[in-house]
Amino acid sequence: MSQITGPNYGRSSNSPYHCGMEIKNDLLLRVLQGETTERPPVWLMRQAGRILPQYRELRNSLSGFKELVTRPELAAEATIQPVDELGVDAAIIFSDILVIPEAMGLDYEMVEKRGPSFPKTIKNIDDVKALDSGSIAAERLDYVYQALQHTKTGLAGRVPLIGFSGAPWTLLAYMVEGGGSKTFSKAKKFLYTQPEAAKLLLSKITDTIIAYLNNKVKAGADVVQVFDSWAGILSPDLYREFSLPYIARICTAMEDVPVIVFAKDGWFALNEIGRLDCQAVGLDWTVNPQLGREWVGSEKVLQGNIDPCLLYADFTTIRKHTIEMLKAFNGKHIANLGHGVYPDTPLDNVRCFVDTVQEFRYVH
Amino acid sequence: MSQITGPNYGRSSNSPYHCGMEIKNDLLLRVLQGETTERPPVWLMRQAGRILPQYRELRNSLSGFKELVTRPELAAEATIQPVDELGVDAAIIFSDILVIPEAMGLDYEMVEKRGPSFPKTIKNIDDVKALDSGSIAAERLDYVYQALQHTKTGLAGRVPLIGFSGAPWTLLAYMVEGGGSKTFSKAKKFLYTQPEAAKLLLSKITDTIIAYLNNKVKAGADVVQVFDSWAGILSPDLYREFSLPYIARICTAMEDVPVIVFAKDGWFALNEIGRLDCQAVGLDWTVNPQLGREWVGSEKVLQGNIDPCLLYADFTTIRKHTIEMLKAFNGKHIANLGHGVYPDTPLDNVRCFVDTVQEFRYVH
Repeated sequence: MSQITGPNYGRSSNSPYHCGMEIKNDLLLRVLQGETTERPPVWLMRQAGRILPQYRELRNSLSGFKELVTRPELAAEATIQPVDELGVDAAIIFSDILVIPEAMGLDYEMVEKRGPSFPKTIKNIDDVKALDSGSIAAERLDYVYQALQHTKTGLAGRVPLIGFSGAPWTLLAYMVEGGGSKTFSKAKKFLYTQPEAAKLLLSKITDTIIAYLNNKVKAGADVVQVFDSWAGILSPDLYREFSLPYIARICTAMEDVPVIVFAKDGWFALNEIGRLDCQAVGLDWTVNPQLGREWVGSEKVLQGNIDPCLLYADFTTIRKHTIEMLKAFNGKHIANLGHGVYPDTPLDNVRCFVDTVQEFRYVH
Repeated sequence: MSQITGPNYGRSSNSPYHCGMEIKNDLLLRVLQGETTERPPVWLMRQAGRILPQYRELRNSLSGFKELVTRPELAAEATIQPVDELGVDAAIIFSDILVIPEAMGLDYEMVEKRGPSFPKTIKNIDDVKALDSGSIAAERLDYVYQALQHTKTGLAGRVPLIGFSGAPWTLLAYMVEGGGSKTFSKAKKFLYTQPEAAKLLLSKITDTIIAYLNNKVKAGADVVQVFDSWAGILSPDLYREFSLPYIARICTAMEDVPVIVFAKDGWFALNEIGRLDCQAVGLDWTVNPQLGREWVGSEKVLQGNIDPCLLYADFTTIRKHTIEMLKAFNGKHIANLGHGVYPDTPLDNVRCFVDTVQEFRYVH
């Protein structure tokens, strides 16, 4: 966002979608506005998911993952479950980053235990030109905006709601590769061999993301997060050319809503990410808090960064490492993991992490 | 290794295995000894493999990957092929890092297009105790030592021969996880929940690696490389506790042979890796040469670090980036990729990379 506009920001009262409710637990919003708080807010990436028995029950009653994504009242239910169960300080809309490629004309399937798969992939500039983009594509995602509205009603102002999108490079990676990959070598080959087609694709994805996130904000998102899940497989030069400029465009286009940028394994770009027009920067667990602060600079809020595998340990170990992390960040911080919580994490261990943060107090 | 012992090091003449031949192209050895050379030596990780038509022909004539690993004359043939075809400045023995777990009593299978799979995995300290280790385990790998001897004969002193091993953490990761994984969350869970069992396993693996690499040196290896392929999924603290001390033990135990340590995605440990008793440190493509030098320090040789996907580009682009890299390292450097060459890389592009390095001259 370009400017912080006051205590009400992220909830513009003239929006046709907006319910106008005050947010009771606004800790996340206050930290993102630069306020000093007595403790950091806490939420978990993938908190709406398989760690929760009520999610597994809901999911098992359906034909597939995409049914849950596309049915607004069900997506809202999944979104609210971790707020009810864990008492986290924010909800994040249950959805998938691949709704954007689909809205642009590239369908995907979610294969059980294998992840996403695209029957058709992007191979050349003609494939790119054939895609829809911008508001035309974003309009097709009305089910997401409805899910946000349902969620806002269900949350009844308890906590802020985070909307999200994949970053342009990460979405390109799936659209060219056709699914998950250890190396994403097809996607990277596309950057090296067809840079102009790649840039046109990145540009069209960016236009779509901007329209999409703006619609999400209108539908009630109080914060947005951009996930660059595959930042870490690019060289710094490629990242500078094919990822950062597009994330920068998204940040600038987001008005009156705080933006969190999370480039997984993108340690080498943290200095540049720290100069983006965003409010917060996510860190994975390979970056220690001091180094993250040094690289990102003093201005932004930092988010993260517990190793998801710590939550397999016993309570004493979880508490010890969590408190160490909280002290290391020491403010301007949103407590989270350094990546999504793993589906087989014991719920009581997740609860131990959340409770540890919520019982913590800064010594200022 | 503890000390550099003179121009003949790495080829002790009293070894029963050693053929006593002088090495004609000893550029790699000279750089590892600290000599200033007119250009860097060049080889590629996974150069013995699917990029070569003669490898594919050899491989297709066999029942499986493991037949190629376990038949010394065939492994030697695969090892020499890239020296014949590409004129690289070093050979690396064709083998697999998972021969070590197998020799310790944990069999693996190589599943076509899916990678390694362990029918049994390590679950607790009793499983660890049941494993063999040290020279008893290493003796079972006689087929590898024979492959080195065959290779030395076949090479007839043309270039040095590199022996290698996976690092203890990387081998533990496969032995606990049971195969490849995006997160290796089972292996990391083992570190968090059974640290003592993990350390016993790491210690037994380390003992085996030391015996194994020493046997390789006796059989003719002029250099050894330790691959920590899964360094990047550990936090700096876990890496410091569960990986570095074991690599350090290996480095110290290697006498009269130069050691290269490559921790893929282990940027956060480069400072500490730079203080190991090794001669060279590998870098992946996320670390730019200047930063790598700053972190590793001025003493070690650096190895790497072209993005394997660059070799999908046209010759002009490959040459441009390769020369930029060579100039950025500017000496004390072994030219290589930042990871193994991808199997579908066009052979002429690999040749372009090798030729570009070999035509390059430092301006001193």
